[in-house]
Amino acid sequence: MLVSTAEGKVDMRALWMSRGVVRAIDQRLLPERLKIISICTYKEMAEAISNMTIRGAPSIGAAAAYGIALASLRNDNLDKAAKILKATRPTAHDLFYAVDLMLSKRNENLSRSADEYADSIVEMCYKIGQNGSHLIKNGYRVLTHCNAGALATVDFGTALAPIRVAHRAGKKFFVYVDETRPRLQGAKLTAWELMNEGIDHAIIPDNAAGHYMKDSVDIVIVGADRIARNGDFANKIGTYSKAVLAKENGVPFYVAAPISTFDRKIKNGKQIPIEERSEDEVLFLNERRIAPKGSRAFNPAFDVTPARYVKAFITERGLLKPGELAGHQEPTELRIT
Amino acid sequence: MLVSTAEGKVDMRALWMSRGVVRAIDQRLLPERLKIISICTYKEMAEAISNMTIRGAPSIGAAAAYGIALASLRNDNLDKAAKILKATRPTAHDLFYAVDLMLSKRNENLSRSADEYADSIVEMCYKIGQNGSHLIKNGYRVLTHCNAGALATVDFGTALAPIRVAHRAGKKFFVYVDETRPRLQGAKLTAWELMNEGIDHAIIPDNAAGHYMKDSVDIVIVGADRIARNGDFANKIGTYSKAVLAKENGVPFYVAAPISTFDRKIKNGKQIPIEERSEDEVLFLNERRIAPKGSRAFNPAFDVTPARYVKAFITERGLLKPGELAGHQEPTELRIT
Repeated sequence: MLVSTAEGKVDMRALWMSRGVVRAIDQRLLPERLKIISICTYKEMAEAISNMTIRGAPSIGAAAAYGIALASLRNDNLDKAAKILKATRPTAHDLFYAVDLMLSKRNENLSRSADEYADSIVEMCYKIGQNGSHLIKNGYRVLTHCNAGALATVDFGTALAPIRVAHRAGKKFFVYVDETRPRLQGAKLTAWELMNEGIDHAIIPDNAAGHYMKDSVDIVIVGADRIARNGDFANKIGTYSKAVLAKENGVPFYVAAPISTFDRKIKNGKQIPIEERSEDEVLFLNERRIAPKGSRAFNPAFDVTPARYVKAFITERGLLKPGELAGHQEPTELRIT
Repeated sequence: MLVSTAEGKVDMRALWMSRGVVRAIDQRLLPERLKIISICTYKEMAEAISNMTIRGAPSIGAAAAYGIALASLRNDNLDKAAKILKATRPTAHDLFYAVDLMLSKRNENLSRSADEYADSIVEMCYKIGQNGSHLIKNGYRVLTHCNAGALATVDFGTALAPIRVAHRAGKKFFVYVDETRPRLQGAKLTAWELMNEGIDHAIIPDNAAGHYMKDSVDIVIVGADRIARNGDFANKIGTYSKAVLAKENGVPFYVAAPISTFDRKIKNGKQIPIEERSEDEVLFLNERRIAPKGSRAFNPAFDVTPARYVKAFITERGLLKPGELAGHQEPTELRIT
């Protein structure tokens, strides 16, 4: 992704490994500050995933793969490292997929395997971009939720990949960015990525998405954290609302995700565990309490959208209808080439 | 409404007049601080409405009535005062209704007329509470949006009136409080009112309302800022989304509003003007910018929900279907007795 730095625009990934150390953009500090941190152990990696320094299902997968590589470099117990890394966040399927994949290669060079895994995500995302960009026509108004951009997927993004590719192909369009409470990944991260790319956009309160869906949105594209066998999928809290509003207003609703997000062990959305995060994410803003003392909050991080709301999944293998997923689940190769 | 103060629980209105001065709770400081301000001129009143010190359609109506009374006390030009007060906020019908009502009584004691108007609102709200409380059954989970409570309506509330009356009648139930970005009236004001009354509740991000609507919400009750002849109504941004989600999930959706909120001059929702507020309400949190420099935001304060989503309007004259509104518009008397 393009990132504005003191030295001008730089092409950068959300995380990468260099000389036995993982380097990552601290996503909690954006857009105020671009800080690259160093992660030296699998425990530091587990912490970085838990506290959302690194976030977004595919980036979490790559981070976990690098976590196993770090454990291997330091001769830590790989099974213990796998267990701790898997315990960081419960919803994204990529996390478990990446850790198991790395364990299956424990006799190989795991740093190289992790690099290959990260490269494969980037390649898949680029293909998602190519496969989805034709959906965005000149003059379109696109709505997206949360951050399914390069930060969330090592590079390129899932939902933002078709947007990036369409923009680089010279198309003119506009993006409504849901701010995405409570953590504001839309206002902070998606807007930052679009700014850096020079893509025209405006941030809207999550509450305003329905208002604009009535007559000012041509297409909705979101990402996914886990997709069940029947096409039900989990994504950032609020995604379900946008899907319902899109259906009610006749706006096509697409989900951009690599095949690795499909979890064939899960029959339908009811079986996807939903992470409940700290109520303080809702009750405090910039360390200041907004709610009365004594009021509590609920803070589910994800919701499940039934398959019937999805026009198609934009994948590295093309557009797939929910009913067409069965034949494409769980890639058997590490790299899609 | 009950308010916790250093002297214990006190029964208080959102605003009232005493010895030629209007006193009002500064709603911008809640729940951190309970501050009662003094308003001495109609210009100060116009400012208090514009900057949302006083907010909520019926409270704005009472504030405007008191504004005309203040102008009268100081021998200001009433027509000029009316014009300035009407220019404060464009969406709430009560504002225009109250100002015109006061002008029609310009030869009477306008302080008393304003008091009577405020009293009539409180009385209507209490009746709304009585007429709606039977909808809330023991064990119910109620969802509400924004603040349609005592702060918004001088006392009692519209959407919160049935909740208050049901609670005082000893019913046990639970309230989901949409935080209501961008200004967080749910997290700040509705939660504060429910805390003070001892009503069990939790704040949720607006994004989570759909998630809970699937199987954890029994009834939705919201307020209204203006209702058109056909039953379309404007209310805080995000209301339309909740209405669509309620319909999709078979949850009954009620709108609590006094008859004075109906605007018979407006044929349908398309004719209701929607206030666009400063983008800084979205881009800044506690004076700190959350979005990248250069990103802009859209900030419509209201949206319009078509009448077909409304199960019934809870009014001081009982439950009315959208089709039954025509016979009840524009009360001819100042007080409903």
